[in-house]
Amino acid sequence: MRTGKEYLAALNDGRTVWVGDELVDNVATHPKTRAYARSLAGFYDLHHRPDLQDVMTFVDEDGVRRSMTWFQHRSKEDLKRKRRYMETVLRETGGGATPRTPDVNNYVLLTYVDDPEPWSSQAVGTDGRDLTKGILDFWNLVREGDLNTTPAFVDPQTDRSRDSAQAESPALQVVGTSDDGITVRGVKAIGTGAAFGDWIHIGVFYRPGILPEQIIFGAVKPNTPGVTIICRESNVRDGEEVEHPLASQGDELDSVIVFEDVFIPWNQVFHIGNPKHASLYPQRVFDWLHYQALVRQMVRAELMLGLALLVTEHIGTYQLPPVQTRISRFAGFHQTLKAHVIASEEEGFHTPGGLYKPNVLMFDFGRAYYLENVAEMAHEIVDLAGRASLIFPTEGQWQRPELRPWLEALQTGPVGRPHDRLKISRVIRDLFLSDWGDRISTFENFNGTPLLAIRTLTMKRAEMSPSGIMADLARKVCGIEKVEEEKETAYTAQADYARRQDAK
Amino acid sequence: MRTGKEYLAALNDGRTVWVGDELVDNVATHPKTRAYARSLAGFYDLHHRPDLQDVMTFVDEDGVRRSMTWFQHRSKEDLKRKRRYMETVLRETGGGATPRTPDVNNYVLLTYVDDPEPWSSQAVGTDGRDLTKGILDFWNLVREGDLNTTPAFVDPQTDRSRDSAQAESPALQVVGTSDDGITVRGVKAIGTGAAFGDWIHIGVFYRPGILPEQIIFGAVKPNTPGVTIICRESNVRDGEEVEHPLASQGDELDSVIVFEDVFIPWNQVFHIGNPKHASLYPQRVFDWLHYQALVRQMVRAELMLGLALLVTEHIGTYQLPPVQTRISRFAGFHQTLKAHVIASEEEGFHTPGGLYKPNVLMFDFGRAYYLENVAEMAHEIVDLAGRASLIFPTEGQWQRPELRPWLEALQTGPVGRPHDRLKISRVIRDLFLSDWGDRISTFENFNGTPLLAIRTLTMKRAEMSPSGIMADLARKVCGIEKVEEEKETAYTAQADYARRQDAK
Amino acid sequence: MRTGKEYLAALNDGRTVWVGDELVDNVATHPKTRAYARSLAGFYDLHHRPDLQDVMTFVDEDGVRRSMTWFQHRSKEDLKRKRRYMETVLRETGGGATPRTPDVNNYVLLTYVDDPEPWSSQAVGTDGRDLTKGILDFWNLVREGDLNTTPAFVDPQTDRSRDSAQAESPALQVVGTSDDGITVRGVKAIGTGAAFGDWIHIGVFYRPGILPEQIIFGAVKPNTPGVTIICRESNVRDGEEVEHPLASQGDELDSVIVFEDVFIPWNQVFHIGNPKHASLYPQRVFDWLHYQALVRQMVRAELMLGLALLVTEHIGTYQLPPVQTRISRFAGFHQTLKAHVIASEEEGFHTPGGLYKPNVLMFDFGRAYYLENVAEMAHEIVDLAGRASLIFPTEGQWQRPELRPWLEALQTGPVGRPHDRLKISRVIRDLFLSDWGDRISTFENFNGTPLLAIRTLTMKRAEMSPSGIMADLARKVCGIEKVEEEKETAYTAQADYARRQDAK
Amino acid sequence: MRTGKEYLAALNDGRTVWVGDELVDNVATHPKTRAYARSLAGFYDLHHRPDLQDVMTFVDEDGVRRSMTWFQHRSKEDLKRKRRYMETVLRETGGGATPRTPDVNNYVLLTYVDDPEPWSSQAVGTDGRDLTKGILDFWNLVREGDLNTTPAFVDPQTDRSRDSAQAESPALQVVGTSDDGITVRGVKAIGTGAAFGDWIHIGVFYRPGILPEQIIFGAVKPNTPGVTIICRESNVRDGEEVEHPLASQGDELDSVIVFEDVFIPWNQVFHIGNPKHASLYPQRVFDWLHYQALVRQMVRAELMLGLALLVTEHIGTYQLPPVQTRISRFAGFHQTLKAHVIASEEEGFHTPGGLYKPNVLMFDFGRAYYLENVAEMAHEIVDLAGRASLIFPTEGQWQRPELRPWLEALQTGPVGRPHDRLKISRVIRDLFLSDWGDRISTFENFNGTPLLAIRTLTMKRAEMSPSGIMADLARKVCGIEKVEEEKETAYTAQADYARRQDAK
Repeated sequence: MRTGKEYLAALNDGRTVWVGDELVDNVATHPKTRAYARSLAGFYDLHHRPDLQDVMTFVDEDGVRRSMTWFQHRSKEDLKRKRRYMETVLRETGGGATPRTPDVNNYVLLTYVDDPEPWSSQAVGTDGRDLTKGILDFWNLVREGDLNTTPAFVDPQTDRSRDSAQAESPALQVVGTSDDGITVRGVKAIGTGAAFGDWIHIGVFYRPGILPEQIIFGAVKPNTPGVTIICRESNVRDGEEVEHPLASQGDELDSVIVFEDVFIPWNQVFHIGNPKHASLYPQRVFDWLHYQALVRQMVRAELMLGLALLVTEHIGTYQLPPVQTRISRFAGFHQTLKAHVIASEEEGFHTPGGLYKPNVLMFDFGRAYYLENVAEMAHEIVDLAGRASLIFPTEGQWQRPELRPWLEALQTGPVGRPHDRLKISRVIRDLFLSDWGDRISTFENFNGTPLLAIRTLTMKRAEMSPSGIMADLARKVCGIEKVEEEKETAYTAQADYARRQDAK
Repeated sequence: MRTGKEYLAALNDGRTVWVGDELVDNVATHPKTRAYARSLAGFYDLHHRPDLQDVMTFVDEDGVRRSMTWFQHRSKEDLKRKRRYMETVLRETGGGATPRTPDVNNYVLLTYVDDPEPWSSQAVGTDGRDLTKGILDFWNLVREGDLNTTPAFVDPQTDRSRDSAQAESPALQVVGTSDDGITVRGVKAIGTGAAFGDWIHIGVFYRPGILPEQIIFGAVKPNTPGVTIICRESNVRDGEEVEHPLASQGDELDSVIVFEDVFIPWNQVFHIGNPKHASLYPQRVFDWLHYQALVRQMVRAELMLGLALLVTEHIGTYQLPPVQTRISRFAGFHQTLKAHVIASEEEGFHTPGGLYKPNVLMFDFGRAYYLENVAEMAHEIVDLAGRASLIFPTEGQWQRPELRPWLEALQTGPVGRPHDRLKISRVIRDLFLSDWGDRISTFENFNGTPLLAIRTLTMKRAEMSPSGIMADLARKVCGIEKVEEEKETAYTAQADYARRQDAK
Repeated sequence: MRTGKEYLAALNDGRTVWVGDELVDNVATHPKTRAYARSLAGFYDLHHRPDLQDVMTFVDEDGVRRSMTWFQHRSKEDLKRKRRYMETVLRETGGGATPRTPDVNNYVLLTYVDDPEPWSSQAVGTDGRDLTKGILDFWNLVREGDLNTTPAFVDPQTDRSRDSAQAESPALQVVGTSDDGITVRGVKAIGTGAAFGDWIHIGVFYRPGILPEQIIFGAVKPNTPGVTIICRESNVRDGEEVEHPLASQGDELDSVIVFEDVFIPWNQVFHIGNPKHASLYPQRVFDWLHYQALVRQMVRAELMLGLALLVTEHIGTYQLPPVQTRISRFAGFHQTLKAHVIASEEEGFHTPGGLYKPNVLMFDFGRAYYLENVAEMAHEIVDLAGRASLIFPTEGQWQRPELRPWLEALQTGPVGRPHDRLKISRVIRDLFLSDWGDRISTFENFNGTPLLAIRTLTMKRAEMSPSGIMADLARKVCGIEKVEEEKETAYTAQADYARRQDAK
Repeated sequence: MRTGKEYLAALNDGRTVWVGDELVDNVATHPKTRAYARSLAGFYDLHHRPDLQDVMTFVDEDGVRRSMTWFQHRSKEDLKRKRRYMETVLRETGGGATPRTPDVNNYVLLTYVDDPEPWSSQAVGTDGRDLTKGILDFWNLVREGDLNTTPAFVDPQTDRSRDSAQAESPALQVVGTSDDGITVRGVKAIGTGAAFGDWIHIGVFYRPGILPEQIIFGAVKPNTPGVTIICRESNVRDGEEVEHPLASQGDELDSVIVFEDVFIPWNQVFHIGNPKHASLYPQRVFDWLHYQALVRQMVRAELMLGLALLVTEHIGTYQLPPVQTRISRFAGFHQTLKAHVIASEEEGFHTPGGLYKPNVLMFDFGRAYYLENVAEMAHEIVDLAGRASLIFPTEGQWQRPELRPWLEALQTGPVGRPHDRLKISRVIRDLFLSDWGDRISTFENFNGTPLLAIRTLTMKRAEMSPSGIMADLARKVCGIEKVEEEKETAYTAQADYARRQDAK
């Protein structure tokens, strides 16, 4: 298994990375990126901690101990084990402060490995090449190296009022094909953490009007000639560990990725050319990531509950009945997310390749619940903290002997421990009142598949048809007959191999 | 097992029941009450349906086949079996139209049977009598007879601004004690379904200021001299099965119960005299009922989803993307409730008496989620139905030959089946736009323990203390030490026997 | 001015009215309709009350004293006077319990009278007849007689998934034209209060796909041969004045109106044949009604605030700080609606015909605010009332000497006056927990133009374009130039005569 | 009238100001403070712009042209003129980006000037000195100099669970009195913009348990010996005008102010020593500021509406019906705030000193409406912007020739103008997704009097009593008598001079 040191060394590979106005020489050392690189190095090192060995690693079928990142859960117990691993990573890395750790990035590869056949057989423009070998080889390659493959799926959406805009956009497309591979040109509009990855995992969110040559699934190394990673302004607070305990841990950076005539050999091509196939996978590839998102949101809700308890204890409002009622809503927020996690595991099923997959509706609607309520809950925690979220001394002020007595008196509540109150305030500020925290909140809305798309796709499921089973009770109570619909639903019209990714 | 006919016969026992302005001679035959009595008879008959035998009945340790009402679940699988039973009752009786069927009423008796010892040993004023025998004998009696014991716990709350008001109120109290039993006088302010029960199960919700003589737990037959059951105005639509398919099935009727010097023999007294003991049980006795409430709410949510699907299909809006987004919220509403049911079962524990009890926080916050969202969801379904919820022909109009062609054209949407649309509209009206439906919605708020009380009690739990485990992650992220609290929490101060009703 | 007695006498004119399964002989005397007929008679009699003369009546330009119903406000002060009249009607008739009193019904006629010219000149199929004379004559006729003209605008929406459904529906259409008038056949799907009107005021809500022959604006007497008024089931509680103080006052009854080859003479035809003209008026005709709706909602909010104060005073929770916080939300609800009423008056403008019209955006969004919040506020008042909304004695129980002492004790709170508590509970039940109250709430959603349509139409206004004035500040803050759009907006494309109904 | 240059020069007076860990030598030039100082200089210069003379200035009774800051509105028209002034300031300074400009700070002085008598006569510990002269002299002094008096009212709230905590806290108190003045010691916990003021305006928010010696109202210059201004970390983006168009304009900085034995001469003391008097003014002094807050919120809502229009136009979603429905909510948000502004002006009244004061309930509940909804609206605008709020090029990237073609294509929507899209994204980010923007949002919650306090104080008003006029309609509808309450209400018990600050 990789060490953090090995990871950091690998980053210095000549990749072209812009962060804001600066061209970064080495991601591992540049002030705009080094903090996050070190956080990921910390992720790798966690797997070597003896006390966490049972949680962080497993021994595979060949007797090799590996990171749980690569664990393929084939039973409910396996899945719970994987969740325990993900929870541990989250708890050890700031309670969900870094949504896209390598275990999350790599998780989406499961869909290919689980059932590679359709990706190959449905491809168009491959001259009948068998892509399944490349898929499996790639999996083995990244597993062996314990690498970090960052997804880049989103195309530019320059004009959402016209379906035809997709074809005219600078979206990545195949511009040449040869015996050795394909040449691609264009952009992927968002790749999160691409600057910190070992591989860029290219894919597509299907949109109406997409061209066959825009359908590309595959892998490219970030330092491949022609690849430029253009990151937004960074929110990192490099070096401000005391004042900004979370924002100083790094910004995973969203980026536009430009591919200027980049060559991809066939063994790194997972699929090309078939919009119909692509349309079946917008959320299915990301199902794993959404399950992880739900686990992360559950952990985040626990953190919010804890912060609500701590800050109200410190300012002396914890015992007031109306405040207790408000805190109890955080308990409910946490319980509901936990319920969705547990129920998605209980109601899981086996995929075509034998993985045990959590129940899709359960984790989708758990995530929906989080997204619908989190803004209000964040607002509520700031309100409970009152001015303690807004105005509190800096560490420098605190350390000045002439100011300390006054500041200490100001921070002293019923429990004493005035310096603790500072620490609580800083975490609340970083999470809910900062560039850094706001970016994470906003990212959640777009992470993988946006909520609106999830809702739309849900309504295409067989059980959600008016003639489906979810209306059986209503029909019984109304006293009306079930009418057998001849016409197939949007769902049954889909390829069988895709539907089997959703349920038994 | 009892038959419906036997149940109806038993009701004619001379009990004094007012329904609105009318004194009811026989609950089984009076137009204000007979519909509900027949619904309960139907409940009993369900247990004799051969196709449902496996779901509705079990064979006890002595080889006797009994109603699942009396099943004591001692494992997770047992609990799931009980839930399947409750779901079946709900689906066969209007999708939750009658919140307080006998299985629900009797469910609360479990707490006594599970651990009768403290009820007896903590009692004050019993001259050391052992009440546990009476508790167990009562359980066997009602189980043998397959009887219906309706709880009556709520005292008058004449003035909530003063704790002292409880002592001055006409709340039921012990006015005499003898070798044979106790004599009680006063009122219980709400007993739901008492007019339809075989026994009234008296209990107390602890309130500050309550007198020891107001602490009474026990059982009384409704026809005991001195007992008067005063029901509110009935919402039943007796005989209007076609126009009001649900409201015609009966109104379970909430009542004030007056006890004028009513004698209760010792073997029907479960506990008296100890406010401290009573204070530990306000929600614990009703935990079972709240778990059932959550199951009922899950079924109700499924019904709402189904109605949303059916009515939008009929008026032709189902395919519109914004409407699909709105319907998908009903899917989420249902999934979240289902998640809480499943997770409460998964995270259950064994009580002192060996029952497997669902996780309390999970069902409490599942119910909280329902109560916080159901008003908006009901409003939404009416809005989705549009005028179809407001104006549609009566059956009499429909049957008039001169009107039919016009009305049929008006009710015909994309799926045809105009008479089905009428039936859907009627169910929506009964559920969401009627006296009858409004009463059920309101009842949910007060069923067992009100939400505010649940929230307050939750915050007394050990894990919800700022020094408890729910703040561990927050402490870790903030980088602050756990401070061991010497002082006991509200929770640890409670009797051990009570705490073991909450968790392992 | 008409008396109530005259009004009642006029109702007995042989009209064909179904109420549920019953054919009503005389609307003024039948148990399903008489209560509401008497309420409207009470409305007429209010105008003869000496103490209200200044508020309820005005002296017109010819020196005739008339009901303020017919007042044409030509200045801000006039408008405020009209509002005072409407408020008085509302306060004297149950605080908004009857949304469609004659003053409201007749209010919509203003649009024709204000600017009759386009209604005539834009008509198609009139052979060039001047319809303006008929419009003005009709206004004079109903004003002279102080009559009640009930609007019936809504066509059947049998299948909202297809625009073509409108043409196939049984919607009212012209089936013949002669020198004397037109013959119409078909249905209007909702006419509120039509059974109680002197005239049915026919109109059209434009929908895509509507046929020219379905465009009809005019007036028909309810007893015209071929007219059948088919009302939904009635929610009236006839004769239950004590128990149901509001629901006993009558149900205004929504109805389907069937026209079987009904003849309308030309002088009762206001417009026919032009879908483009009709499309400009869906909400403009009803603007007056929406302003009145806002005034009614303001009064209703005041009633809700008052009920919240009274019921919490009675149960002793009024003084509790968290309860005060909750009551204060009712104060805010009321203030916001009042703010919209005042601001719509202040920001009014003069129409083409010289009327002073309140600001359209202000009353539209005031109404939107009400509709978006009222369900939650209603839920809140029921929750504040607690069990006092659910279970309380009937008057018959209260009058029984053996029950009274118990019931009186139960209803006695800190302020005493136990019978008053009953009265408060009854009003809360009628308003928020009854068939009757639910129908009014639902009606509000559909009254005139539904909220979604209002929102859509608002976005077509010139100022709501991205190049319009509402984005000027945003452009200034962003530092971007205003780009002059050449292309006309949806708004500017509209006929000038219509746009002048919206603003100066 | 002062110029910006004069203002900047005056700041260099030797005051002791900490900003985060840095001790600032000169507020006008230090990188952490100069941007905001220049913004305030810009505020002063606005008054010299010829095109704005009529709006920004007035000629006083002595013929002197002054800043409208000092205008005392004595009629409704005057008040509207003042509002136009405030709106202009807001529109010229980033649409509300700086909540506490000098006109706002000085506005609160009106209460003293309007009715100085009680401040003097109710004082305790002044040996009968007449403080009114000092009050009026101070007003003239700051008016003559066009100065900026920043309020500092909030005491430390170290433990809100005990009323006794106030007395033990380091809150500012009188520690000595002499013939010349008083000596004070302690802290004011929040003074916004104090680092940028000419005077610190000391006052008190009454809290139970406050000591007479903690009651101090008066004025102190920031460079007075013993005064230390300790500001929180600054959020300014000094010098980043392009990338952060709003955050670069400065951070007004909240501060703790320490007074170490600071001497205040009698003519700068407005009141001392009387908690009862102080308790009457927590919100009344700040009423003016809350009216301004509402005006600012109205302007902010207009900005949000404009941004919603612009960003959706740019990404091509503006025309989509569901998006239009969402944008229309911003129109409603703006209209409701505007309605409250207009209605508070229309329903105003004259104070004891003859000022025309806007209606208090109207602006309080307008502000409440804003605070209750703004978090959701901010979330909505970010959601409408989609990824355009999260990832977009920096100006440096945009200017690189090799990146420009790709980036330009990515930013080009239906309207073209790709660089405009960048500008819109930057404003959205600064307002809703930044340290800087989050601080303003949070500040609004605590600006002047927090919402909860406003609600509590509202319920003390005479009309909000159950026996008050707001319940008259409810009593009428319920048919119950008005009961005259003998006992005085919380409101009538207040001093008459204070009540006259609320209403006629």
